[in-house]
Amino acid sequence: MTDWLPRDKVCIVGIGESVYYRWGKSPDSEFKLALQAITAAIDDAGLRVEDIDGFCAFANDRNEPILLASALGVSRIRFTNMFWGGGGGGGSGAVMNAVLALATGSANYVVAYRGLAQGQFGRIGQSRAGGAVDGQAAFAAPFGLMVPAQNYALRIRRHMHLYGTTSRHLGAISVACYKHAQRNPRAVMYGRPITIEDHQNSRIIADPFHLYDCCQENDGAAAVVLTTPERARDLKQRPVYVRAASQGTGFRPAGGAHNIDNYATAGFVEVAKDLWERADLTPKDVDVAQIYENFTGQTLMSIEDHGFCKRGEGGPFVEGGRLEWPNGELPINTSGGNLAEAYIHGFELVNEAVRQMRGTSTCQVEGAEVCLVASGPGASPFSDMIVRR
Amino acid sequence: MTDWLPRDKVCIVGIGESVYYRWGKSPDSEFKLALQAITAAIDDAGLRVEDIDGFCAFANDRNEPILLASALGVSRIRFTNMFWGGGGGGGSGAVMNAVLALATGSANYVVAYRGLAQGQFGRIGQSRAGGAVDGQAAFAAPFGLMVPAQNYALRIRRHMHLYGTTSRHLGAISVACYKHAQRNPRAVMYGRPITIEDHQNSRIIADPFHLYDCCQENDGAAAVVLTTPERARDLKQRPVYVRAASQGTGFRPAGGAHNIDNYATAGFVEVAKDLWERADLTPKDVDVAQIYENFTGQTLMSIEDHGFCKRGEGGPFVEGGRLEWPNGELPINTSGGNLAEAYIHGFELVNEAVRQMRGTSTCQVEGAEVCLVASGPGASPFSDMIVRR
Repeated sequence: MTDWLPRDKVCIVGIGESVYYRWGKSPDSEFKLALQAITAAIDDAGLRVEDIDGFCAFANDRNEPILLASALGVSRIRFTNMFWGGGGGGGSGAVMNAVLALATGSANYVVAYRGLAQGQFGRIGQSRAGGAVDGQAAFAAPFGLMVPAQNYALRIRRHMHLYGTTSRHLGAISVACYKHAQRNPRAVMYGRPITIEDHQNSRIIADPFHLYDCCQENDGAAAVVLTTPERARDLKQRPVYVRAASQGTGFRPAGGAHNIDNYATAGFVEVAKDLWERADLTPKDVDVAQIYENFTGQTLMSIEDHGFCKRGEGGPFVEGGRLEWPNGELPINTSGGNLAEAYIHGFELVNEAVRQMRGTSTCQVEGAEVCLVASGPGASPFSDMIVRR
Repeated sequence: MTDWLPRDKVCIVGIGESVYYRWGKSPDSEFKLALQAITAAIDDAGLRVEDIDGFCAFANDRNEPILLASALGVSRIRFTNMFWGGGGGGGSGAVMNAVLALATGSANYVVAYRGLAQGQFGRIGQSRAGGAVDGQAAFAAPFGLMVPAQNYALRIRRHMHLYGTTSRHLGAISVACYKHAQRNPRAVMYGRPITIEDHQNSRIIADPFHLYDCCQENDGAAAVVLTTPERARDLKQRPVYVRAASQGTGFRPAGGAHNIDNYATAGFVEVAKDLWERADLTPKDVDVAQIYENFTGQTLMSIEDHGFCKRGEGGPFVEGGRLEWPNGELPINTSGGNLAEAYIHGFELVNEAVRQMRGTSTCQVEGAEVCLVASGPGASPFSDMIVRR
């Protein structure tokens, strides 16, 4: 699987987002938020809406390309693609799908995006009492696992049992994300820093997860525009290359399903292996990382899965400010991420990766040339990508 | 857009299907039907389920890869993809998405499939009275367009008005499909031939559509397996190459949306243009075609859209047995298609295209080397592909 044809063949040329709102606070519809993010990304690139001929999203996004195209005035769609399945595993995957279309000559300018106004459609984090329980959930709900926090809590609890990982370890991830958000005016948690003691004292959502271990629930949208390097030459921004991408899962992934063999992981082992091979890079080459946090425990295990430290060593690894800008060895989620910027199902991490490679982050890692974006885990397959300057 | 990289780079190596049932008659769940089709396709190829690492579907298929993988024992998923949107536009598109994954080295063996047991989830052809009306339907339902037959009837009525097309023209398509089904024991309408008079005398569903102008509603599933030519060498079947594929729409396509500029078309003009360019072929090169029929009027206009005859000449073109095997100039839907084999959202047409290229159809076109599969129109973007021997 090492001969991955699209390596460095496609670049991100525009990024955009709506205002990020607290849950239920958007004055605009989810569809309008998606349009705002998409038009902002098109403007940022220096393109016109008529140039766009592809739309890629994920997590069963409700903002269908055919309606977006009508609203935008896009006259020709060549590629409309869904990274299949619910959950936040598809941020990098949506970008990867756009890469495949562009690298093969199947489209010219593709938007990848996520519009997610949970305030208008119900909370992902809340059980729908009385609703149908199907799919993977049918196997877990009878045992009381009704919401994501419960499902994911069991896995990090296993990690704690096996390796001595503690709640304070998880708190270090939270503190880093909130710290970064304090420099980012887009962040919903801007102006609301937390300490490790705040984390420890916050209420339990699903043991061992405290409130601050959990991603937010928000209203908002984020988008990027991709094209080929040749077309990028005439555009406004310095192109950011998609070095490599990877998607999928191993056997019974870390969403609703449960599998003893990979229980104390984020489920990224196989996806990460493909990624490093396709990129011809190693974790040591990564200057900054955007690592999805539905819950801090999954971020910790994702760091292990990607090979930044050994299995079981994630707890000590994330301590001591290692994840914090500007002095940490592996700054993560430099916009605040899902925890403290906004939970746009992780797509805001894609935008932040591009900013880092452009040199325009509010927590800019000096000289950063390689950024990892780990998307997931979630109920669907996951995805990974590496972007480079 | 002529430099389409995956041309002839990927082939179909296995096909399979469940038993095709009348609406509501399947003794098995939709999920089980999907598994039956997929395992049949894997067997047909001479592969083991463990070889599969990708799943592509369309029309918001309910049979999620992550559940299929668990049920099948697939240990590693590398690509899970949805041709986005409801409707039958994605049969060739799901195959195309698999082609992109395989041609770029993003997966090794990909299944494309559709599981559709309408008897277990409600009829596509029936309005859900009292249900939410959203998306495109929100613009049409207030004017009484509640079901697909009504939406699509208006368009062929326009064609009749402009070009003098008649109901008997539409009937010629129906008669051809039913004729072909009489040689195909898989077909739900096997043993039930119709004449043009049967067509004319059948009840009106949505003027000008008679009963026999409308696709069936069925329970069933169909699937194909794709891989690269190098890997295909060791397998059981003669590989069938995907010459080219194309997807998308022009402005306001021919599903729920309405646009005067392309009203009397099936909406395929732009998609077909890309297809011929990417394939470096013309309609004259096509030996046999599988042309989606949600309704016969759309098939007639699709034939025009693809350039088999001029705009407005579709009526006379489809007459005189031109679409009928064995003597017609352009045999279509040689298995019976959506009208008379089974409505697996058009995916059964993909399987039939492969049979024609293998030389194993029950209405085998002698010496056939090039087959078109037109998927759609539907509520989503559409898709096209050409397979070759």
